[in-house]
Amino acid sequence: MVTNDSTAAGSVGEVETRLHTLAGPLALDCGATLERVDIAYETYGTLAPDGSNALLVCHALSGDAHAAGWSRDAGALTALDGFKADDRGVKPRGGLGWWDGMIGPGKAFDTDRFFVVSTNLLGGCRGSTGPSSPNPATGRPYGSSFPVVTVADMVRAQRAFLGEALGIESLVAVAGGSLGGMQGLEWAITHPEAVRGVVGIATSAGIGAQGLALNAVARNAIMADPDWQGGDYYGTGREPRAGITVARQVGHISYLSWLAMEEKFGRRLQERDGYSYTLAGADFEVESYLRHQGASFADRFDANTYLTISRALTYFDLAQAHGGGSLEAAVARLAASTLLVSFSSDWLYPPRDSERLEQALRAAGKQVEHHEIDTTYGHDSFLLEEERQTPMVRGFLDRIAP
Amino acid sequence: MVTNDSTAAGSVGEVETRLHTLAGPLALDCGATLERVDIAYETYGTLAPDGSNALLVCHALSGDAHAAGWSRDAGALTALDGFKADDRGVKPRGGLGWWDGMIGPGKAFDTDRFFVVSTNLLGGCRGSTGPSSPNPATGRPYGSSFPVVTVADMVRAQRAFLGEALGIESLVAVAGGSLGGMQGLEWAITHPEAVRGVVGIATSAGIGAQGLALNAVARNAIMADPDWQGGDYYGTGREPRAGITVARQVGHISYLSWLAMEEKFGRRLQERDGYSYTLAGADFEVESYLRHQGASFADRFDANTYLTISRALTYFDLAQAHGGGSLEAAVARLAASTLLVSFSSDWLYPPRDSERLEQALRAAGKQVEHHEIDTTYGHDSFLLEEERQTPMVRGFLDRIAP
Repeated sequence: MVTNDSTAAGSVGEVETRLHTLAGPLALDCGATLERVDIAYETYGTLAPDGSNALLVCHALSGDAHAAGWSRDAGALTALDGFKADDRGVKPRGGLGWWDGMIGPGKAFDTDRFFVVSTNLLGGCRGSTGPSSPNPATGRPYGSSFPVVTVADMVRAQRAFLGEALGIESLVAVAGGSLGGMQGLEWAITHPEAVRGVVGIATSAGIGAQGLALNAVARNAIMADPDWQGGDYYGTGREPRAGITVARQVGHISYLSWLAMEEKFGRRLQERDGYSYTLAGADFEVESYLRHQGASFADRFDANTYLTISRALTYFDLAQAHGGGSLEAAVARLAASTLLVSFSSDWLYPPRDSERLEQALRAAGKQVEHHEIDTTYGHDSFLLEEERQTPMVRGFLDRIAP
Repeated sequence: MVTNDSTAAGSVGEVETRLHTLAGPLALDCGATLERVDIAYETYGTLAPDGSNALLVCHALSGDAHAAGWSRDAGALTALDGFKADDRGVKPRGGLGWWDGMIGPGKAFDTDRFFVVSTNLLGGCRGSTGPSSPNPATGRPYGSSFPVVTVADMVRAQRAFLGEALGIESLVAVAGGSLGGMQGLEWAITHPEAVRGVVGIATSAGIGAQGLALNAVARNAIMADPDWQGGDYYGTGREPRAGITVARQVGHISYLSWLAMEEKFGRRLQERDGYSYTLAGADFEVESYLRHQGASFADRFDANTYLTISRALTYFDLAQAHGGGSLEAAVARLAASTLLVSFSSDWLYPPRDSERLEQALRAAGKQVEHHEIDTTYGHDSFLLEEERQTPMVRGFLDRIAP
């Protein structure tokens, strides 16, 4: 049973995801235009009268707007989030936000001080316009007609949303892990006047070949499922469950380190009385775990959104987009200070990616600090190593806040 | 065009894969019995009159009996082997065996001196009895009725074959990479009187949780394909092509190191004029490469064999099978000397697995040497770093040969 612990110390309490429809159409990098864009969002804390304390938190591939506090609406869904810590000895967190440990009174993103905004990404499946949303031209879900969006498009949508819905024109910081950090970097380069700080955790200016490959295989698994139907599966009674299950399993392995898997599972068997001598049996604990993770994800996540967001994060390339191939030239436009946090065992967004960013920022004369945290949790660390990240984030925000 | 370079220096020349049917049924670890077992094999060099110079070479997941020389029969198939070096600047090797660089006159496994035997694994799809072979009970392919076999079963079949077909009762060495090395270790423990040496390259006494997980996802991709039909796809006109394609792509990523992928592909685009802004396009070179690898593999390999062999290698656990959980106790039965070679960038069968074996062998008072080769090629190194392995293997064989 999910319990409401929104009264716990440090919690922002019970929250609700709201919806804003952008005032006008949104032109995209691919050349297409979305006529109607809804943005699902949550806010925590109080906006200062002069609007000077706003902070945007951006989620990663499979997240949503529900970043903090407890939510009735999202409860059943976020409780199943494979990212969550219930499989590491922490109790299931029910309807708690995906970064609840980082956002709240006295926490890293201190809601006694900052007005924290979280949105569901453009292309998402948790309220914001995405492939499963109705296409205004037909009244039916977009499916295969949803355009391929980019991280820059996500930022465009966030920018329009913040001004229209909340009257926010500048941000103390844009923060996030993984794809969330990419959004922070994109924000700071395309809107240098509007961003004082970037908090990029376990992120990259452009993932390398191994990351491209892992993402490609996950997408191929979905597209290989005949139930995907070229993307037009909505309303057919068939969904690419098998494909997204395999995709999530590939992803899950890449979010963990070998050592974390070894410590948690080793070669332990699910049943104690030996091998099943079958192909289909989940003999090892890690096999059973992966099946559970895959099935849970298939229950809660839209396959076309997975494809769309995965494509966006592989397309993200700061050096190409803003520096003619030079990362140093790309970040020259940035006015913000940058905090980078990386994790020693993260092989999907490895510390070397943060080091490369750090070096480019330094070479361009920008304020940057980079902390590498020694941990076995792999890429998942940005969601799990909350205590160790907190002083880094608090210290950084202290230094940059007006 | 495939050229026959069987006359090249160091080549064993043109070879032919032959077939032997075991004299009797084969009892398996799972409790089942195979009534008829065919073993496909090749031999290179000349057996000494006293039978004292025989050496068994064992292949890995996707190999076959065609280990050396040039073959008309197998040419078209082995040329497509994703393991091969054509994608690393080496010319396609056409009908050459998968370890041709290691086996031949003057090579690591010197056919001027040794009589080298190579068989297709039990469960295979290249001549030896496997899931695609006719079930004598029905006359139709086994499919889902093929039993789950183990590495120990593979060794049982090899042992019976060597005695019956070639009159070989003892071996100078059993050698192989990856799963091939597992067979060598199993041989030396279950037939200590028959094996003087084990050459285990990029191998393990039992893969860890990450390796179990990667294998599980690859198998899940096949079993999730509706064309798999529970394993009974033979003769239906439908095969799990999509599933085995994804399985191979997962495997391929795990055979390479991040650095090898970075150096070979980076973020280079397949077409120079930018992104396709599609979900299905193979925009990046690495995406295109993976599709090619997957499709080539689907053309040449049987999905049920993939499942069967993958299962066997995950079940392999020397400590559990022979030592009541203690690796040191397991290897106490072994009389052979052991050569272990590992590769610094191999994350599927990492150097730590060889170190663990080395320590157990030393603790049990056995002769062992372990060389870690510094290379970027990852697990594929056992097929690519032939020159650097050669002196290690030659030196080892010099020391142990009668």
